[in-house]
Amino acid sequence: MMRVYLDHNATTPLRPEARDAMSRAMDVVGNPSSVHAEGRAAKALIERARAGLARAMGAEGAEIVFTSSATEAAALALRGRGLHGAAIEHDAVGAWVDDSLPVDGAGRVHIADPAQATLQLANSETGVVQVLPEGLAVSDMTQALGKLPLDFLGSGAMAGIVSAHKLGGPKGIGALVMRRGIDLDPVLRGGGQEMGRRAGTENLIGIAGFAAAAEAAARDVAAGRWEEVSKIRNILESSIAAAVNETIFVGKDSVRLPNTSCFAVPGWKGETQVMQMDLAGFAISAGSACSSGKVRASRVLGAMGFDGAVAGSAIRVSLDPDVTKDDVLRFADAWCAAYRKFRARAA
Amino acid sequence: MMRVYLDHNATTPLRPEARDAMSRAMDVVGNPSSVHAEGRAAKALIERARAGLARAMGAEGAEIVFTSSATEAAALALRGRGLHGAAIEHDAVGAWVDDSLPVDGAGRVHIADPAQATLQLANSETGVVQVLPEGLAVSDMTQALGKLPLDFLGSGAMAGIVSAHKLGGPKGIGALVMRRGIDLDPVLRGGGQEMGRRAGTENLIGIAGFAAAAEAAARDVAAGRWEEVSKIRNILESSIAAAVNETIFVGKDSVRLPNTSCFAVPGWKGETQVMQMDLAGFAISAGSACSSGKVRASRVLGAMGFDGAVAGSAIRVSLDPDVTKDDVLRFADAWCAAYRKFRARAA
Repeated sequence: MMRVYLDHNATTPLRPEARDAMSRAMDVVGNPSSVHAEGRAAKALIERARAGLARAMGAEGAEIVFTSSATEAAALALRGRGLHGAAIEHDAVGAWVDDSLPVDGAGRVHIADPAQATLQLANSETGVVQVLPEGLAVSDMTQALGKLPLDFLGSGAMAGIVSAHKLGGPKGIGALVMRRGIDLDPVLRGGGQEMGRRAGTENLIGIAGFAAAAEAAARDVAAGRWEEVSKIRNILESSIAAAVNETIFVGKDSVRLPNTSCFAVPGWKGETQVMQMDLAGFAISAGSACSSGKVRASRVLGAMGFDGAVAGSAIRVSLDPDVTKDDVLRFADAWCAAYRKFRARAA
Repeated sequence: MMRVYLDHNATTPLRPEARDAMSRAMDVVGNPSSVHAEGRAAKALIERARAGLARAMGAEGAEIVFTSSATEAAALALRGRGLHGAAIEHDAVGAWVDDSLPVDGAGRVHIADPAQATLQLANSETGVVQVLPEGLAVSDMTQALGKLPLDFLGSGAMAGIVSAHKLGGPKGIGALVMRRGIDLDPVLRGGGQEMGRRAGTENLIGIAGFAAAAEAAARDVAAGRWEEVSKIRNILESSIAAAVNETIFVGKDSVRLPNTSCFAVPGWKGETQVMQMDLAGFAISAGSACSSGKVRASRVLGAMGFDGAVAGSAIRVSLDPDVTKDDVLRFADAWCAAYRKFRARAA
């Protein structure tokens, strides 16, 4: 049976445009720091990619520092600054900030002092989208970029964290995007690369793939492909709700990413559902995929006020424009069948 | 005219084995942290690569943490430990250690307390190879791996820093290799990847390319291909010495990498030579390529006791097994012609 991948918030397949750009970059021999022709060609490739990513996210004229991941971009943006965050932030952000910012039941974060705060643009588990306050110090835009229209310079944020592999680029490449004039302490040192902000020979192939994917993703967003995705997501949720009416949909009344559905049947463990669905041919997740081997109730749902029975039972289904109505209906059937077995055992 | 690339210590062309492995890895959809089949397949790819790299460098049973570069591996290995180093270390190491260890005129470093020291296995500019003392805390093995037979567990070092792009792998991926039981403070945080030592979604494609390149490089070393390289390097040096007898060859009486030649004609600026040779079709370097745009006298040569006139005039020619005798003879001709013009102008 053909498997159906419904875990696009964890990572996405490589776009053909990214693959092509990476294959071309494989032929570039030089080190971007070398002054000879081979080095200059490598440097030019990076600068074209930087301009491409800037175009794709409304960051023309902003500073873009390529990093090895959104996690590294978060370290660069946040380390040692003592900013405030909410408990719904990704662990890569949470590692450097407190969790003092209040979250309401709809998943929205309330910020008193934006210049001292970080706030994600969209949540990876629930898809809930935030309104960023003007002057926000840092925003984790990882889940939003490529799924929503994004105009970095108009977003309110001074700095944005992004990642390639969430939008059809390769894993292992991210960026910190900044308005001009921000002073940060480099995390990686011992080389003048990336305007002195990030030492280390650049991931040329990954950078080329990131830019190509971001530009293709921006075209998809502009073409309205994600509006279709939200319709298919809504069909999924309607099917699930009709079949299992005690299902709790998290963040459903908030503005959400078009592709994300987070739902729970209290008592039916998320991890169990993930494994059962995996055996049935569907890849989904329980919580964030970024903590290898960790199985625990969602910190995000806890912060939104859900009790442990709900938080431990939530699963995330996340689509992309290639997921069809038939795919989600087949998933809903398989999930409902598994649910009936769970109920029968529990009875 | 066909260009000749003689800057293999700066970076190397991608090996076909690495390209193939990377192309295959591009088809792997999952996030290695996901528990479903797609995630497990991605995780398995990383673990196969980890085993392959271990085999290639005599590190079976050691711990290997993949990083985004040797620079990041150096930060992970050295940050906050207060180790001692020599002024000939790469800047990525020098950023985290002092330069208190003495260097002699042959480029050898003398270490009193190995447990509190870091020492490169081979120098990127001169090729001088060190004898590592038993119990050495950290060794930068970036330039040695893939050019010399390397048995990490027998090397004396507790931890080794390595990089893919110096041995035919892609740029943007490195590793820290460690004997078991070393406690280090993670630099990148907020995820359990790499045994909790390095957060961030793994560079799957880069990791696959690194391992494939390292294994191919190990086969080349075992097959004696670099012994041929040293013969060609020696032909280059003999030609240069015969034509311009005031040339100073740096480290020539030390054990050196088989591919590296560092030489100077006092007063003829290294940067000028690099540009003239570039126009003549040859890619070489003056100093390390890792400090974008920086033009300065070699810190390495200064530490070896050479004065500024020599250190500012040194160039590095670095070969790989595909460089032919004809290539280096053509280079020697072009270099000697440029030298004669320099002399004529100076006269």
